[in-house]
Amino acid sequence: MTQFSKEVMHVGEMASGAALTVPVYRLKGQSDAPSVYIQANMHGAEVQGNAVIFQLLELLRNTQIKGDITLVPYANPVGCNHKNGEYTLGRFDPITGVNWNRMYHFDESIIKPFVRDSIGKDDKTIEANFKALMIDSIEQKLDHNIFGLTTGQRIAYQLQRLAHQADLVLDLHTGPISSKHLYCPEYAVESAKYFDIPHTLLIPNAFDGALDEATFCPWWKLEEAFAELGIKFSISSNTLNKESFTVELGSQEQIDLDVALEDAKSILSYLQYKGVIDTSAYQPKKMTRFACYLKDYKAFYSPMGGMVDYLAEFGKPLKAGEPLARILRMDNYHFEEKGDADPLHYVSLDHEVIPILHFASASVNQGTELYKVFTEFFILEE
Amino acid sequence: MTQFSKEVMHVGEMASGAALTVPVYRLKGQSDAPSVYIQANMHGAEVQGNAVIFQLLELLRNTQIKGDITLVPYANPVGCNHKNGEYTLGRFDPITGVNWNRMYHFDESIIKPFVRDSIGKDDKTIEANFKALMIDSIEQKLDHNIFGLTTGQRIAYQLQRLAHQADLVLDLHTGPISSKHLYCPEYAVESAKYFDIPHTLLIPNAFDGALDEATFCPWWKLEEAFAELGIKFSISSNTLNKESFTVELGSQEQIDLDVALEDAKSILSYLQYKGVIDTSAYQPKKMTRFACYLKDYKAFYSPMGGMVDYLAEFGKPLKAGEPLARILRMDNYHFEEKGDADPLHYVSLDHEVIPILHFASASVNQGTELYKVFTEFFILEE
Amino acid sequence: MTQFSKEVMHVGEMASGAALTVPVYRLKGQSDAPSVYIQANMHGAEVQGNAVIFQLLELLRNTQIKGDITLVPYANPVGCNHKNGEYTLGRFDPITGVNWNRMYHFDESIIKPFVRDSIGKDDKTIEANFKALMIDSIEQKLDHNIFGLTTGQRIAYQLQRLAHQADLVLDLHTGPISSKHLYCPEYAVESAKYFDIPHTLLIPNAFDGALDEATFCPWWKLEEAFAELGIKFSISSNTLNKESFTVELGSQEQIDLDVALEDAKSILSYLQYKGVIDTSAYQPKKMTRFACYLKDYKAFYSPMGGMVDYLAEFGKPLKAGEPLARILRMDNYHFEEKGDADPLHYVSLDHEVIPILHFASASVNQGTELYKVFTEFFILEE
Amino acid sequence: MTQFSKEVMHVGEMASGAALTVPVYRLKGQSDAPSVYIQANMHGAEVQGNAVIFQLLELLRNTQIKGDITLVPYANPVGCNHKNGEYTLGRFDPITGVNWNRMYHFDESIIKPFVRDSIGKDDKTIEANFKALMIDSIEQKLDHNIFGLTTGQRIAYQLQRLAHQADLVLDLHTGPISSKHLYCPEYAVESAKYFDIPHTLLIPNAFDGALDEATFCPWWKLEEAFAELGIKFSISSNTLNKESFTVELGSQEQIDLDVALEDAKSILSYLQYKGVIDTSAYQPKKMTRFACYLKDYKAFYSPMGGMVDYLAEFGKPLKAGEPLARILRMDNYHFEEKGDADPLHYVSLDHEVIPILHFASASVNQGTELYKVFTEFFILEE
Repeated sequence: MTQFSKEVMHVGEMASGAALTVPVYRLKGQSDAPSVYIQANMHGAEVQGNAVIFQLLELLRNTQIKGDITLVPYANPVGCNHKNGEYTLGRFDPITGVNWNRMYHFDESIIKPFVRDSIGKDDKTIEANFKALMIDSIEQKLDHNIFGLTTGQRIAYQLQRLAHQADLVLDLHTGPISSKHLYCPEYAVESAKYFDIPHTLLIPNAFDGALDEATFCPWWKLEEAFAELGIKFSISSNTLNKESFTVELGSQEQIDLDVALEDAKSILSYLQYKGVIDTSAYQPKKMTRFACYLKDYKAFYSPMGGMVDYLAEFGKPLKAGEPLARILRMDNYHFEEKGDADPLHYVSLDHEVIPILHFASASVNQGTELYKVFTEFFILEE
Repeated sequence: MTQFSKEVMHVGEMASGAALTVPVYRLKGQSDAPSVYIQANMHGAEVQGNAVIFQLLELLRNTQIKGDITLVPYANPVGCNHKNGEYTLGRFDPITGVNWNRMYHFDESIIKPFVRDSIGKDDKTIEANFKALMIDSIEQKLDHNIFGLTTGQRIAYQLQRLAHQADLVLDLHTGPISSKHLYCPEYAVESAKYFDIPHTLLIPNAFDGALDEATFCPWWKLEEAFAELGIKFSISSNTLNKESFTVELGSQEQIDLDVALEDAKSILSYLQYKGVIDTSAYQPKKMTRFACYLKDYKAFYSPMGGMVDYLAEFGKPLKAGEPLARILRMDNYHFEEKGDADPLHYVSLDHEVIPILHFASASVNQGTELYKVFTEFFILEE
Repeated sequence: MTQFSKEVMHVGEMASGAALTVPVYRLKGQSDAPSVYIQANMHGAEVQGNAVIFQLLELLRNTQIKGDITLVPYANPVGCNHKNGEYTLGRFDPITGVNWNRMYHFDESIIKPFVRDSIGKDDKTIEANFKALMIDSIEQKLDHNIFGLTTGQRIAYQLQRLAHQADLVLDLHTGPISSKHLYCPEYAVESAKYFDIPHTLLIPNAFDGALDEATFCPWWKLEEAFAELGIKFSISSNTLNKESFTVELGSQEQIDLDVALEDAKSILSYLQYKGVIDTSAYQPKKMTRFACYLKDYKAFYSPMGGMVDYLAEFGKPLKAGEPLARILRMDNYHFEEKGDADPLHYVSLDHEVIPILHFASASVNQGTELYKVFTEFFILEE
Repeated sequence: MTQFSKEVMHVGEMASGAALTVPVYRLKGQSDAPSVYIQANMHGAEVQGNAVIFQLLELLRNTQIKGDITLVPYANPVGCNHKNGEYTLGRFDPITGVNWNRMYHFDESIIKPFVRDSIGKDDKTIEANFKALMIDSIEQKLDHNIFGLTTGQRIAYQLQRLAHQADLVLDLHTGPISSKHLYCPEYAVESAKYFDIPHTLLIPNAFDGALDEATFCPWWKLEEAFAELGIKFSISSNTLNKESFTVELGSQEQIDLDVALEDAKSILSYLQYKGVIDTSAYQPKKMTRFACYLKDYKAFYSPMGGMVDYLAEFGKPLKAGEPLARILRMDNYHFEEKGDADPLHYVSLDHEVIPILHFASASVNQGTELYKVFTEFFILEE
């Protein structure tokens, strides 16, 4: 049976002195296959990933594991427990407003000197050294700063320290009300086909504070820096496998253990493809897979305040001019001949898109993010 | 065509001086049929009632109206516009925590003196005098208090002043995630059969601050006070029709105009039964109607903190021992033989209930209201 | 040296499974002098009581203690740690809006049967039996309810179980921006003179859910029930001492350890008067003490929205017509001859009052509680 | 008398359709002296600026005005009116968490082409053209985007459009609990001496989304771009005066009209220096003025959770090792010999600083921003 261990990581303290802790589960692999880090629930309302980790553990109990797997549910003990009214106010630090998934660390200035010192070394040595450098760099931030760290940085950096120890990183999120979709670095597009997720966002090599970026950008920048010197150092090769994904599992504020089982199998399909587990039981489903580049993933902001009846179906191309939603404005109701302000306003776009998610509430201000849509999308696999 | 008018009622001011306003729509009847007051969205997240008012107006445009109808969407301009994170924090005043639907007024001490003065008068005179007394009593609260009113009272009392002018009052609400159900005063149980709502809660003659109570309790107390003196004064008779309902339209944070059309027809079925509109187009649907007394409508509080996979279907009897929900506690996950703390905990009750609604989020503290259920329920009509 | 012990009480769980705990400190007395229960910070932002408990412990280390003393800082681990923006949202349960200090339990129906059963018993036996009854009644609520308890009830009842074991109960609170004042049951007015607090509110025998009421009302109702039968059972006598106070220490969101030392000495002055500690070191300060009855403690709600420059000094009688505050309404600014809407509005009352506290923010809605004031006040001691 | 006008700017809509509006006051100058734009209350809790605008208007009524002055109180109608509990949640959009003062616009790519087209033109023409370009660029953002704008951008851009029309821009803010301080672009350091504000932060030419940067960076970048071509185009000269400041007026959540009068005079002292008003009545006060560079303005994050007794006085150098604060942790209280966890923890720094502001609440998490301090400070003027 799989060797399993559990520890509790202390990531902060609240005003009363109550400790903020995160459970860490480790499954020990039996070879030097790629190692894996999976976390869930960094945003407080995005809880389905915890159920997926539950189902992963249930499935992995009886699976031959080759690479080490670390699983971290409830990654953010502040966000996860912070209600305001009936809902979880977990997307940002309630004190500062900063998005919990924009606090990870990457200082690009470490790349150039590292490359200079690495010329002539073999790939495995470079890999080990760079991993050590990244972990050390996080530990410096955690431990050597007289002015301290924000609450969110202290949590994020400790998670990141775990993530840097793995080759493959999966950060489990959800949208507000959302279809499943995958944030995938451009170089790892082949891997996207192993998840049972029909929509893939292709991410460039730019760091904006998220965990996936914080774990793939350093390696990708490293590969690029070597390439500039004419040296081949490939992070997606037979010997090296450095990939990170943000896996969007659907809608927030809900868990469904049956759906979580499907999601767990989808992740195992990817892990099998990467040689982390030793079974052929998990294969990707056949489906049409759409993709678009991050720059073409557009937020559509409400042109007016009102109450929204969301109409567009997720995941299917929506023709130009077809309604995304209709917005009710009862204050504009009138019996006489209609003027320019009507009680019902239909919202559409002038080109084809794929709606991926919409806002969590019917009530929106002018300027609330109504939908996020793929534009300029294309088919990855049919 | 129906005579229609609209006004904007000023119900308060915010810190910047911005006016808090509520739109009021009036349809003029052509006879002395019962008059109707319908409001929606007193709780900020409970928006579907606005869509129902929209559909009511669309249907009433071409309907022969006998009794006056007043419709008030967006009844609470504070609650309706108050977001915290993506959701609407609209169940209580964000400053004080007081439930917006517990701020209406009824001072029972007006009943006895009024009855004493009314002995020997005819029903129509008594009705007119009592209505005037209730309106005057609200106006005293609104205008003659050197210490002032709370923000919520000022809103509630102005709405109540409109409601007291009508015979029939419908307050449109929703639950968090909920089936449709109806709060109905015990004496008006016959009327419950005219709404297309399969679950009815029968409410006793006790005032707890809600609008339905604030409008039916005074009349019901009046009837009782006369009865104590051996005088018959019936509030549900051929000549008098005093009924108030809280209509729970389903789940909060969403509007659906198609469902709203069905709900509007259901309300028109009731109004037709009461002779407010002159058409036979709207008839109640056939359905099994369950009821229970308010004292048997139970909240079930979570026995533990955790993340909830809600299992029980709404509106259908759930046998004793059948699971309401399963609660995930990943921190209890272990590989070894299971101890007393398991990662999955099934929750059930020891007697049959009908689940009516559940909490809006999967994440709950120990003690969060998980479900509300009918116990000791019975069938009103099959 | 004083015998000291500490335990951690488990009062709930959050969604992640994180335990909600409260520290309980106990000092062992050496006689059957009255025992004491002191708690702080039931409302999350009202933190000064924690500092007072710190200073009490520092002073009691070297004090001869006769009665047992239990001290509970951080009484509410939810409220205490719940920020929204930079401030603590700790006055009510963030999910339900219910005031944390309105969740204690007292079921008056226990009194009559108890009195019936106690006729002929001696005071000490009655005391012991009634204390046992109250504790048992709380334990029934805590442990024997298939529908469970709310999060706040579970916290409150566990604190109340501790409080019922003591003779004297002090619940340490603060106002928003506030002078020191004391909630004192009418029968204990003599005790009010031993606190260094110049303003006393005299509380009737009516239970509204607060801890002080939940601990003094049962005894007071018991005394009254015996009196109705012509039996003398005095709760403030040589043998029995049942008193509970809510001690309002000043303003919320701040601690000051130096002021806390003064407050601790003031409490020790009261405990000395009651014979709990064996020293004459702590004597009440000379001061003019004002009092008013709870019914005359008035909230003044803002007559308009705006931004408030609070003018009235706390704790001193303010003559009729003198301004409490001036309210700025920049949207009304004009250069021309002034109309009826001015940018500055002075607020005053038509009779003399003592301002005790005001709202925490300059920005108010129409209807926000601006000030609380003593009306019909009188001098307790000069 | 001064020519005065007022308009109401529509900046958005809420869910109910309620308009979000901002009042705009304009005073007409009689010459081509520099024009001024002053706004207040972009952050909801920072209300003192509204009182300062009130006092400015009162003083300017009877002042000879040379340059046009535009004044905008209540700049952010969402933030200003958004309470959560008793405090104003106004630092960030409650839906998204984005800081309201990080949403202004500047696209640096407009500079180079503009400079290329401007070679050979005179300064006044360049100024007029560049101002037109900036205004046009904002109008493009406001009006020509099929995907729309966020709620905050729509507000910010409309304010920015007004600000771009002026030469001198003052954005009135406050800290949480704070001394007065001034954000001043490095090139305008002389002007800092005309405000009655003892602490000046010198800001580099880097745009981070704030209004001051959005209005001075474009001009400063323009000057630099010309300088790279060897062309002198000075934005602080006899003919051109382009300056923007964020004026931090003290603490949030309060207004004081008397202090506001002093602040208004301090602003008039600056406006007089710039020739905007024609009077010598307003002169800067004598005071020691400290300054530091933005990079040396440090946030100190709490090393632990706890309740803070803030000790350090604002505005005065605090020696290395002197305590900033002491943090209470009652859960660590013990009677026995003290271990490493003590109930009182003193916090200090290892070098001299000037404390400028501290957190608004005593209760802090590990990592909450406790203080902001000048390090490496120096004296501007003694």
